[in-house]
Amino acid sequence: MPKLSALKDKVAPLYRRGDAVYFLDQLALPGKVAYRRCATPEAVAHAIRAMVLRGAPLIGCAAAYGYALAAKGAAVCDGRLWARLDRAERLLAASRPTAVNLFWALRAMRAKAEDLRASGSRTFYRSLLAEADAVTREDVEVNRRMAGHGAKLLPKGGALMTICNTGALATAGIGTALGVIRWAHELGRAKLVYPLETRPYLQGARLTMWELAQAGIPSRLITDGMAAHIMKTERIAAVLTGADRVAANGDAANKIGTYGLALLAKAHGIPFYVVAPSSTVDMKTAHGGDIVIEERSEAEVLEVRGLRLAPAGARARHPAFDVTPARLITGLVTDRGVFRAPYGPALRKAFKS
Amino acid sequence: MPKLSALKDKVAPLYRRGDAVYFLDQLALPGKVAYRRCATPEAVAHAIRAMVLRGAPLIGCAAAYGYALAAKGAAVCDGRLWARLDRAERLLAASRPTAVNLFWALRAMRAKAEDLRASGSRTFYRSLLAEADAVTREDVEVNRRMAGHGAKLLPKGGALMTICNTGALATAGIGTALGVIRWAHELGRAKLVYPLETRPYLQGARLTMWELAQAGIPSRLITDGMAAHIMKTERIAAVLTGADRVAANGDAANKIGTYGLALLAKAHGIPFYVVAPSSTVDMKTAHGGDIVIEERSEAEVLEVRGLRLAPAGARARHPAFDVTPARLITGLVTDRGVFRAPYGPALRKAFKS
Repeated sequence: MPKLSALKDKVAPLYRRGDAVYFLDQLALPGKVAYRRCATPEAVAHAIRAMVLRGAPLIGCAAAYGYALAAKGAAVCDGRLWARLDRAERLLAASRPTAVNLFWALRAMRAKAEDLRASGSRTFYRSLLAEADAVTREDVEVNRRMAGHGAKLLPKGGALMTICNTGALATAGIGTALGVIRWAHELGRAKLVYPLETRPYLQGARLTMWELAQAGIPSRLITDGMAAHIMKTERIAAVLTGADRVAANGDAANKIGTYGLALLAKAHGIPFYVVAPSSTVDMKTAHGGDIVIEERSEAEVLEVRGLRLAPAGARARHPAFDVTPARLITGLVTDRGVFRAPYGPALRKAFKS
Repeated sequence: MPKLSALKDKVAPLYRRGDAVYFLDQLALPGKVAYRRCATPEAVAHAIRAMVLRGAPLIGCAAAYGYALAAKGAAVCDGRLWARLDRAERLLAASRPTAVNLFWALRAMRAKAEDLRASGSRTFYRSLLAEADAVTREDVEVNRRMAGHGAKLLPKGGALMTICNTGALATAGIGTALGVIRWAHELGRAKLVYPLETRPYLQGARLTMWELAQAGIPSRLITDGMAAHIMKTERIAAVLTGADRVAANGDAANKIGTYGLALLAKAHGIPFYVVAPSSTVDMKTAHGGDIVIEERSEAEVLEVRGLRLAPAGARARHPAFDVTPARLITGLVTDRGVFRAPYGPALRKAFKS
């Protein structure tokens, strides 16, 4: 029997050494494995904005470190400390608007900072860094729990489809949807994976294909427009995706293309599972219509990795996310178990504060 | 009142001069406008295979010239002539398996050749070249008729969505779906166009965006995965696509991604029109299941225009077309008018031979 805890990765997407956090530069993958050092909240926020790292859970871990780094060299009695922390929080919160894990991590860090102040901590900065380490370690464990719950939903020997990257490069652990797929593969429940390339950033082609190769899982890359044809002509046991935010009614924001993929899965009678940690569930957002969709630069659509595609002067749209309504989601796999429709009552019960 | 016949293009995708046909190199667009000279059937077949030119109607015109060029320098009484013509026909027929216009054009040319033989023509080669010119001129007229029929279906001031390139670069005239869009724009029925970029070849980003810019039609390029979100959040009056083959029951093969787009249009209550000339309707193909889908090279998915995306050793799928079932098609716009479900009886009546 394979062991979930044995699933490890050769390359970490993030690690802390001393007073700096190092991010694997995901823009350079799969061509180059290189890390970028960030020692200030500004540097961390810049790395998130520039998409050096991405993936909602990983952004949460990065933000936790960014917040802690704002306290470097300041004593708890220092009057400027709290202005610095507030400024770091605002800066980090603005770095990516859709990933709710970011706000969750910042709230956790702020709560810790207030506890430390109340107790008159003499190791304020060190304790905040340790808290960011704890947020990161917790994500590893949360990933394992989701993988355990999710893999049970899949039949033996099936082919799976996924979008974007939701693996070890999107989290601190084995991933959300891709973590489920990796564990399912160990159990003989993921014979073949079809990752969508996921334009414009090509996280599927560059990152998911790289992770699947490292894990020795057979895969066939497809363009985003091939999903419906593959669903019709191959046997797809399930579609699994991550989420950047899950609303109180079960609507889920995720990478652009996910909503269309859910509609196509429905049309072909294929189960569609969203895999996301508890920190992605946002009970303060009533439904998907309240989620602000980040509109990124047109250039990212008019080009592929710096290579110009469209003619000079061309215009584009670039919504970076879309919202999948709860009615299209067969199950929501979290570290607290699998939720099913009607999501409203189920989530209210599990996430009442 | 604008005139349909006034819609002209600055750049022709194909022209004949003397004993050679010149193809605009569509692989080099929009970066460079350059022509490739082809003086033999082999050169024409190679250009079609390599996608120097594409678009089902344009491939038909090119094949007609390729067939005619096989007769160069041979008298009608020459015993080797028919072996050469047969060889050219087989070679050209094998260059792209899905576009039925290719087979239609080759049949028309063969019929002409047999007529010329029967009449003991003394200008066999010249007459075949003139027939290829006629096939090409006919396409221009057919395009205009489709534009006239199609534009009437669209409401005033709406936004339209399209996939691949179906314009002046895909035909000898103003195009099929994009021809309708251009004429609709003249009539105030196409306020804004959302072309899907259409991976892997990016015909939407490179060719359709280029044609729309030349025609002065406002457009916003989107990636293939954005279609559902744009349908949900913007008002899309209709989706228009071309077809590479329409079966006797109305099922239509077209660029990969079209089937998914039709499902998404259905889910959002948006009319979905297929625009194709009569030569695309193949009454010998009973339904879409009988259409052979061309599977092209994996490299075209693993790369974007020669730029490697996926890690070394990665595998991909590359179905180049998919089949949209008739039940998802609101109307089939042809040069003989607009057909609607049930397509079987309507097409049988119009296309009985």
